[in-house]
Amino acid sequence: MVCGASECLCLHSFIHTTNRVNPNHPMHTPIHTGGHFAMHRPTALINATLAGAGAANLPPRAGVLLHDGRIAHVGAVAADELSPDHEVVDCAGRLLSPALIDCHTHIVYGGERSDEFRRRLEGQSYEQIARAGGGIAATVSATNALSVDELVETALPRLDHLLAEGVGTVEVKSGYGLTIEGELNMLRAARALERVRPVRIRTSYLAAHAVPPRYRQNRQGYLDEVVLPGLEQAHAEGLADAVDGFCEGIAFSPPEIAQVFDRAVALGLPVKLHAEQFSDLGGAALAARYNALSADHLEYLSAADAEIMARAGTVAVLLPGAFYTLRETQHPPVEALRRAGATIALATDCNPGSSPMTSLLLAMNMGATLFGLTVPECLTATTFAAAQALGLEGETGTLEAGRSADVVVWQATSPAGLINRLGFNPLWRRYFRGRAVT
Amino acid sequence: MVCGASECLCLHSFIHTTNRVNPNHPMHTPIHTGGHFAMHRPTALINATLAGAGAANLPPRAGVLLHDGRIAHVGAVAADELSPDHEVVDCAGRLLSPALIDCHTHIVYGGERSDEFRRRLEGQSYEQIARAGGGIAATVSATNALSVDELVETALPRLDHLLAEGVGTVEVKSGYGLTIEGELNMLRAARALERVRPVRIRTSYLAAHAVPPRYRQNRQGYLDEVVLPGLEQAHAEGLADAVDGFCEGIAFSPPEIAQVFDRAVALGLPVKLHAEQFSDLGGAALAARYNALSADHLEYLSAADAEIMARAGTVAVLLPGAFYTLRETQHPPVEALRRAGATIALATDCNPGSSPMTSLLLAMNMGATLFGLTVPECLTATTFAAAQALGLEGETGTLEAGRSADVVVWQATSPAGLINRLGFNPLWRRYFRGRAVT
Repeated sequence: MVCGASECLCLHSFIHTTNRVNPNHPMHTPIHTGGHFAMHRPTALINATLAGAGAANLPPRAGVLLHDGRIAHVGAVAADELSPDHEVVDCAGRLLSPALIDCHTHIVYGGERSDEFRRRLEGQSYEQIARAGGGIAATVSATNALSVDELVETALPRLDHLLAEGVGTVEVKSGYGLTIEGELNMLRAARALERVRPVRIRTSYLAAHAVPPRYRQNRQGYLDEVVLPGLEQAHAEGLADAVDGFCEGIAFSPPEIAQVFDRAVALGLPVKLHAEQFSDLGGAALAARYNALSADHLEYLSAADAEIMARAGTVAVLLPGAFYTLRETQHPPVEALRRAGATIALATDCNPGSSPMTSLLLAMNMGATLFGLTVPECLTATTFAAAQALGLEGETGTLEAGRSADVVVWQATSPAGLINRLGFNPLWRRYFRGRAVT
Repeated sequence: MVCGASECLCLHSFIHTTNRVNPNHPMHTPIHTGGHFAMHRPTALINATLAGAGAANLPPRAGVLLHDGRIAHVGAVAADELSPDHEVVDCAGRLLSPALIDCHTHIVYGGERSDEFRRRLEGQSYEQIARAGGGIAATVSATNALSVDELVETALPRLDHLLAEGVGTVEVKSGYGLTIEGELNMLRAARALERVRPVRIRTSYLAAHAVPPRYRQNRQGYLDEVVLPGLEQAHAEGLADAVDGFCEGIAFSPPEIAQVFDRAVALGLPVKLHAEQFSDLGGAALAARYNALSADHLEYLSAADAEIMARAGTVAVLLPGAFYTLRETQHPPVEALRRAGATIALATDCNPGSSPMTSLLLAMNMGATLFGLTVPECLTATTFAAAQALGLEGETGTLEAGRSADVVVWQATSPAGLINRLGFNPLWRRYFRGRAVT
């Protein structure tokens, strides 16, 4: 039974038709599949090859029981554990993993910047492009020109591409408003995504993303008049799950970031930081001192600061899409992070400029191919570690009884089969909070 | 009306449901959409932004008329040119281009080699992997274990991923049989793909891909007993559109390739060559002397040989998926090719080892990002130039009256919008031989 509404808000019977060909197509509408009873039936995914955190020391063919939106059991499934109520899905040996988590994205924005891509290939410099109105300024203008509903609408095709590859949780940042209202509208749009798609959204308040031109001679004014009061308001409205910043020569200094983090701590909000992308300002160590959930990018991270991150439990989120698109040659210090025992995550960094990437599987391939992460590291990086980077390690990202029933079955028999291909989507079934959503 | 058959062979009313999420899903079946009349109606795609060869000097909003499987008109469409028979599709300013052409693939094969990917990331050498039965030998065994029908079945998900991104023509090579029957079966499977999907397939006979172990001490024996008689037989059965080889220290020498090319010339078949991928053996110049359609890879091509290729009209097919996957650092000489006036194409090189890539859009992005091709060069490289690399320049790859009506409409307004994104599929509509197939 097809629901004719363009957006289905019936949470109990929501199935999103993940059409990778063309998410903008009018046929791309949610589908009802049989009402509450069908959707709330416990599900037994049996005869699978389990992978990911929680799957160690299990028999080669095992299963997962989903009940009331939670994982009820992981491991061997005896016939007498199944009731007539169970919907039994024989995975025929296919790989079953936790649903993937994209823990660093900027998918809510207006406009697009493909023309800059063309200009750069023709030899124009960033400065020339910026003078022609390009760069982040172009995205800020286009974003602030849209209503919350329009921001949702333009973000959906990007979100749908992510979900179609087995993603169950997406972090979304503000940072293209650079006014209080603009930042809050981005976060409102991010929250709304969770109501129209079967996905868990975590928001990060990122007003400290760039200094807008009107404050270029008055940087403290931007902090005092926009970033800090906007943070208070975002928190008051329940719009921010975390507070982020961009610590870099072209953005904010460590002391400026510290002001933002101090306010976050006062409000009881966790922090994270874009750090060491183009130079080593000690941003990751600063973040670690605030017990940050994560420090992200990290191409220029020192070995000493990798140890500081590891001790603080601050996750290292690597973003190979930006590394690739910017033709960066400095690699993040993967070996130093391993030696320090840091937790490594991977994300798309989906944004209109430096990483127009909507494939977390491709980010995993790049993590392996460009950064040398192993296959198990890549899978951990988009499940367990990505959950930790969002403060969700008790909720999702592992195959453990009690966790949210966010699991994916793949047309593959080992994690390598997810990661080694370029542009291939091996998704077979996706479950979100226990409901089949693909 | 959904056709319940798993493969629909009704050529007049074939629409393939391009489901990027899961081409293996049982729902992924062809659909009938109204019978012969509906499919044979002339179509007017109006109000589009035209791009690609044939689209120069056209008004900003123009259109294309499709009639009897051919492009009947390109340019401004006056109201009085439209009859009541025309199905009129308002493209609302969207980009319209020739359907894409993937001019170098190995999509027909058995097995998969993701485990090698895992082993390499764990530090194992190619030699260790080969000793453990990996590498091309693994694919040869797995391919020869399958029937023609099974080869078709395993190739379809790869083909479907290509088609879902607007590809209309795919070149498919043999080369994993390395026996006469094995090579012919691969070509039979490639031909069969054309009967079960709306796509034009061009085959290349590639028995000179690797020397099988049993002939390692008797290389000439492999040429005399397998490659050359197999070529005669492939030609006699109409299975080969072109003859290909791998000219490299680890494969075949220029004099060995020349023997194969001599036989191809005697049979009236055009040639192409994997050349200069890991070293400069002068393969591209050899190919040019045989008026080859293309020489492919070319990382180690010299500027002098780029000029020889250009003079011969031999297309330079660049394969960034293999460059990326193998972490090659030697770039193909794009500037020398430009100076020489050579025609540059891009392809996926889809194969289970060095380029497990099923996205031609990603190959275009890599052509730009890794090789520095401009946006117009990337679009030409997968349309006009790719057609030339297959000897199809009079048939497809351009927007010109008389050409096959293979056109694509994109959810984008400029070619840069196709190329700058990673993992995003902006396809809106695909037409193959005048029929809507997406």
